[in-house]
Amino acid sequence: MIEQLFIIAPVGAVFALLFAFIQARKIYSFPEGSDLMKRISQSVRTGANAYLKRQYTGVALFFVVMFIILGIMAFAKLLTPFVPFAFISGGIISGLSGFIGMKIATAANARTAHASSYSLNKGLKVAFSAGSVMGFTVVGLGVLFLSIWFLLLKYVFFAPGSEAILELVAKGFTVENAQIQLISSTMLTCGMGASSMALFARVGGGIFTKAADVGADLVGKVEAGIPEDDPRNPAVIADNVGDNVGDVAGMGADLYESYTGSIVATMALAVSAGYGFGGAIVPMIMAAAGIVSSIIGALFVRSGEKTDQRHLLAALRKGTYISSALIIILAVPIVYFCLDCANHGGFTGPRFGVYWAILSGLLAGVLIGMFTEYYTSDSYKPTKNLAHSSLTGPATLIIGGISLGMISTAIPVIIVGTSVLVSFYASGGGADPETLKIGLYGVAISAVGMLSTLGITLATDAYGPIADNAGAIAELSHLPEEVRKRTDALDALGNTTAAIGKGFAIGSAALTALALIVAFIDEIVFMRPDFIFNLSITNPPVLIGLMVGVMLPFMFSSMTMNAVGRAAQQIVIEVRRQFKEIAGLMEGTAEPDYATCVDICTKSAQKEMIMPALMGILSPVVFGLILGVNGIAGMLAGATASGFVLAIMMANSGGSWDNAKKHIEGGAYGGKGSDPHKAAVVGDTVGDPFKDTSGPSINILIKLMSMVAIVFAGLILNYSIFK
Amino acid sequence: MIEQLFIIAPVGAVFALLFAFIQARKIYSFPEGSDLMKRISQSVRTGANAYLKRQYTGVALFFVVMFIILGIMAFAKLLTPFVPFAFISGGIISGLSGFIGMKIATAANARTAHASSYSLNKGLKVAFSAGSVMGFTVVGLGVLFLSIWFLLLKYVFFAPGSEAILELVAKGFTVENAQIQLISSTMLTCGMGASSMALFARVGGGIFTKAADVGADLVGKVEAGIPEDDPRNPAVIADNVGDNVGDVAGMGADLYESYTGSIVATMALAVSAGYGFGGAIVPMIMAAAGIVSSIIGALFVRSGEKTDQRHLLAALRKGTYISSALIIILAVPIVYFCLDCANHGGFTGPRFGVYWAILSGLLAGVLIGMFTEYYTSDSYKPTKNLAHSSLTGPATLIIGGISLGMISTAIPVIIVGTSVLVSFYASGGGADPETLKIGLYGVAISAVGMLSTLGITLATDAYGPIADNAGAIAELSHLPEEVRKRTDALDALGNTTAAIGKGFAIGSAALTALALIVAFIDEIVFMRPDFIFNLSITNPPVLIGLMVGVMLPFMFSSMTMNAVGRAAQQIVIEVRRQFKEIAGLMEGTAEPDYATCVDICTKSAQKEMIMPALMGILSPVVFGLILGVNGIAGMLAGATASGFVLAIMMANSGGSWDNAKKHIEGGAYGGKGSDPHKAAVVGDTVGDPFKDTSGPSINILIKLMSMVAIVFAGLILNYSIFK
Repeated sequence: MIEQLFIIAPVGAVFALLFAFIQARKIYSFPEGSDLMKRISQSVRTGANAYLKRQYTGVALFFVVMFIILGIMAFAKLLTPFVPFAFISGGIISGLSGFIGMKIATAANARTAHASSYSLNKGLKVAFSAGSVMGFTVVGLGVLFLSIWFLLLKYVFFAPGSEAILELVAKGFTVENAQIQLISSTMLTCGMGASSMALFARVGGGIFTKAADVGADLVGKVEAGIPEDDPRNPAVIADNVGDNVGDVAGMGADLYESYTGSIVATMALAVSAGYGFGGAIVPMIMAAAGIVSSIIGALFVRSGEKTDQRHLLAALRKGTYISSALIIILAVPIVYFCLDCANHGGFTGPRFGVYWAILSGLLAGVLIGMFTEYYTSDSYKPTKNLAHSSLTGPATLIIGGISLGMISTAIPVIIVGTSVLVSFYASGGGADPETLKIGLYGVAISAVGMLSTLGITLATDAYGPIADNAGAIAELSHLPEEVRKRTDALDALGNTTAAIGKGFAIGSAALTALALIVAFIDEIVFMRPDFIFNLSITNPPVLIGLMVGVMLPFMFSSMTMNAVGRAAQQIVIEVRRQFKEIAGLMEGTAEPDYATCVDICTKSAQKEMIMPALMGILSPVVFGLILGVNGIAGMLAGATASGFVLAIMMANSGGSWDNAKKHIEGGAYGGKGSDPHKAAVVGDTVGDPFKDTSGPSINILIKLMSMVAIVFAGLILNYSIFK
Repeated sequence: MIEQLFIIAPVGAVFALLFAFIQARKIYSFPEGSDLMKRISQSVRTGANAYLKRQYTGVALFFVVMFIILGIMAFAKLLTPFVPFAFISGGIISGLSGFIGMKIATAANARTAHASSYSLNKGLKVAFSAGSVMGFTVVGLGVLFLSIWFLLLKYVFFAPGSEAILELVAKGFTVENAQIQLISSTMLTCGMGASSMALFARVGGGIFTKAADVGADLVGKVEAGIPEDDPRNPAVIADNVGDNVGDVAGMGADLYESYTGSIVATMALAVSAGYGFGGAIVPMIMAAAGIVSSIIGALFVRSGEKTDQRHLLAALRKGTYISSALIIILAVPIVYFCLDCANHGGFTGPRFGVYWAILSGLLAGVLIGMFTEYYTSDSYKPTKNLAHSSLTGPATLIIGGISLGMISTAIPVIIVGTSVLVSFYASGGGADPETLKIGLYGVAISAVGMLSTLGITLATDAYGPIADNAGAIAELSHLPEEVRKRTDALDALGNTTAAIGKGFAIGSAALTALALIVAFIDEIVFMRPDFIFNLSITNPPVLIGLMVGVMLPFMFSSMTMNAVGRAAQQIVIEVRRQFKEIAGLMEGTAEPDYATCVDICTKSAQKEMIMPALMGILSPVVFGLILGVNGIAGMLAGATASGFVLAIMMANSGGSWDNAKKHIEGGAYGGKGSDPHKAAVVGDTVGDPFKDTSGPSINILIKLMSMVAIVFAGLILNYSIFK
């Protein structure tokens, strides 16, 4: 009976896609405004398309190479033959999610600006609908894709009578456990494909967007003294393209990957926890229930005409809170029936404890979002104080921002830590090997809980860059003051939702990565049941792995920041050239050459994303071959812990600098053009690669490293120097 | 026979103190120069004395409270009755080391400036001799103090017939093992006393020095446009006082603590490694041999008249290299006889493997120093590139510096990691509990190897702030151009040695902290032999501990940076006030009120050091009582890994910014006063708290947390929520 429940998952997925389709049609039915607006929007679209086309071409090469490597490994019986295909398909769907999100975002920017000329609520609605298309496409595609693989693997490739299953049955597995084991380990490879694609998208998009932004600001704002989003700035279109390819496509691929990663990791742990198929399908059904909750929540998002941030944020939040409340209710029957609680003590029995794990994950996500808002919004003390420190110049502002980012890591660590403890012990975890596995299943499913309402969370999040673009278009096409005031309000809200989204993304990434580490250990046990683990922190390879793992996110951040620096340098040179060579540009009588800037960003982002991405993919293999299974587990744990802390620090420092600048631009400490404002611009520029390139890429890095370790587990197990 | 060898240790210590005394007399025999120089030097001295007096008074209160707490715990039989006294005495000797170093440094600054008017070599000699006084006082006091405690404990308090020993013998211990166990666990408390004092000294001194420096720069250089070390700047004396209380007294207390910490941690592991008294005294005798090697090395330090950096650095390095070569030779007989290698396979037998552990530690220290120089000296590409990035303004310079610091962590992690693996496996370590202990003893002794030549390393290091002060005095007392050129050369060299010293300090801190974590686990085993450890990274309390541990150095850095910011703010206000209110100050006809600035720094450093220091001391107890023994071990491992990486990043970012600024001041990119120079000043100001407050304090933090965990092991073991 439990197996039949699975059908809920693809049905939910279809609902999500349908909802996304309806929203998309609604958006396309809006007009784009004046000819100028259409033209600007078209430029952004062209640039974004050109970028993604190029990115996908480049990444395709990587996928072909990986396909061959995985193919050889499958041939050598180190992997199942379906792994290479799972890997490729995971990458494709991840890329597709990003592509659709970007498409709709670039279609919605001018429409949002135009809608804002009617009313604030209308503008909010268009931007949020576009965000919804993105959000529900991601979750819909994700669940549908996983469902198809699941059904294919369960009923075709690994059907009860298949060779692979019979082989495991001969080793003493039950048919059910053999199936789940093979299904989940193959599906984890989809995750690796998705992660790889996401890393390229995040890093490449992040470099693009920040190179354009930093380059535009350095020459435009600082040197030439023209305002942000001024049409005379040749990099202004590139900047807007960047918002779409970085913040929309990149973010989509990132969360798609956390989403599917947490689901398959939980699936993978169902066998060792002793839950069988019921435990394997809980995350899928939770996802479907999350979709329904999110759709209902999304319908409640609307605002009045007040432009103050608290009011607008409340409008968006209402949707999230309603969805969360619904999922809290829906999770009860899901856990109860799938895990067969009736025969295990009912609502107070050990199996029902999994419910509390889901709840703790969901709550942790909401709490991390709240504290991110506290640290980065200028409605609260930390960012207000940061803005104040601009009075003594850029140095104190930079020190203050880094310091703020650092201290803001404390509470999220405690939240995630508490959530892990609660989910572990509530779901029946303990010290002996058996209950340990049960507890770890609980930890994995808490990540699923956190991500269950991803549809609406991502909608809120993708709303940000769309509103940002709308603001720029309003500025560039000289819409009336009143409209710009509305788009500004929407944009400012976008900064806050982006910061909250980042907190959520990193929180879920940490929990997912933890689940994946456990899945890695499980995979080793499956491959060689007699392997003797020594995961103690006193075992030198574990300890060294830990230190290396802690270091890797630092190294990775350095590489991505340097990449932004180099790419921005090229933009600076180009913008300076245009200012000098194009006669009449400054007077507004000649148009700048926007396309060249877009092209430079595209090329350098493509070039610069290679090294950091390769580092992420290769390091688990390289260090794995040296430090062995135990060492690599230590490395993954170290990288997860340090990546979590570093990503929060960078996101919050960056977010707070951005809002401190906006706070000053709102009139504090002399407003625009004053010395404190100049200092704040320096802070904001430093924060750009922090919050939009390095920080969010770390989320993917830590998950990807775990995925790579799982896929190459056989290699590490057999050929490492230390055992 | 082995026991009699112990006498070498106190004899070596007396040699060190004698050598320091001779050097000190030599320094006092030099003249201090003109009356003006004497007066300036006197102001610095007065300020430094006032600060230390106040600091010691404040810290005394803390020590009294801790004495009472430890007393109560001893009364409750959770600790031996000697622990409170060991704690107090450790703190006193640590403070004394800092005090003597500061005394001689403030005596030597004017004398170095004056000696430089004769020749460069003479200036170098005076500064280096003063550094030697500091270096040899620290090692001499350290070894003598540990020897006295050792002898008292072994022959009086825990003599073979004493009650405590008989009690353990009844439990099945041999007399020898019972003695070492009780001796080392009591002596570890000396380490905690020293650490606590060091943390206060480093944090307080670091806040003082950087508040003065940042404050002086922000108003003097940036706002008023007067040069560094200009006598018209009211904060200039406070800045010089800061060099002494922060860089001299703080650094001395820090390395004193690593030095004694590594010795007692190794001692503590001797029992479980099965080496008995021989293993316990190896670190002490190594220290004595290191003293002799360092004295011989120190005699070889001299320079010609060439002011180029490579030449000068080579002069200082010669001493270090000679000392290292000597200790490599001396360690052979020490290991051979103390560990009774003759009966265990001779020079190729397992026990002699400890020799390779010592060597790997020594080599790791040298290598980390070399790479620190590579990343921070403007003779090499990284800092040259950083200076270049100043062309596009402060934002790119800041991004570049942070990025440089981050990537510079990779090689040190790999060096320390390799050193740990080599020392573990070379000394016979393996996976089973018995050989595990043997290997961990090897890891501990590699830290002793790294620190064995501390006498001369610290001399080189303490030389830096003395040369810096001498440069300032030369500037303030208008010495001829030629002399200032010499003091500038000495000062620039000081920046490099300071950076190298920081790399060394953090490398040794990491190894010591690792040894202390093992000592903590050992202490638990001693207290409750049947305790079942679960140190696996899949055990949730360990995992959470790990995450919390990784986060703590970030939180701590944030607190210390904020403290500097607040204190600097007060200096800014005071300097602005004096510039405005004191008529004729700018024209040079009136003198500023230096004393008030010193006083403000003193007061705020005292106030601001409390919270970060308390956080360091309390966090192992608080989290220990929640997460239990396993969790706290995870926390210590996480904090060590993350502290190591973060400290290197902050030290190298800061060092590189400083030298990039000096590079520009040397004429590159427009030289002093140009826009790139202004950008570089911002970078240097951001780097100040990085490299001189937060970064170096983390070294102490990670050791102190381990020490606290050891002292409160009984409490954590019995009363924690999770077990």
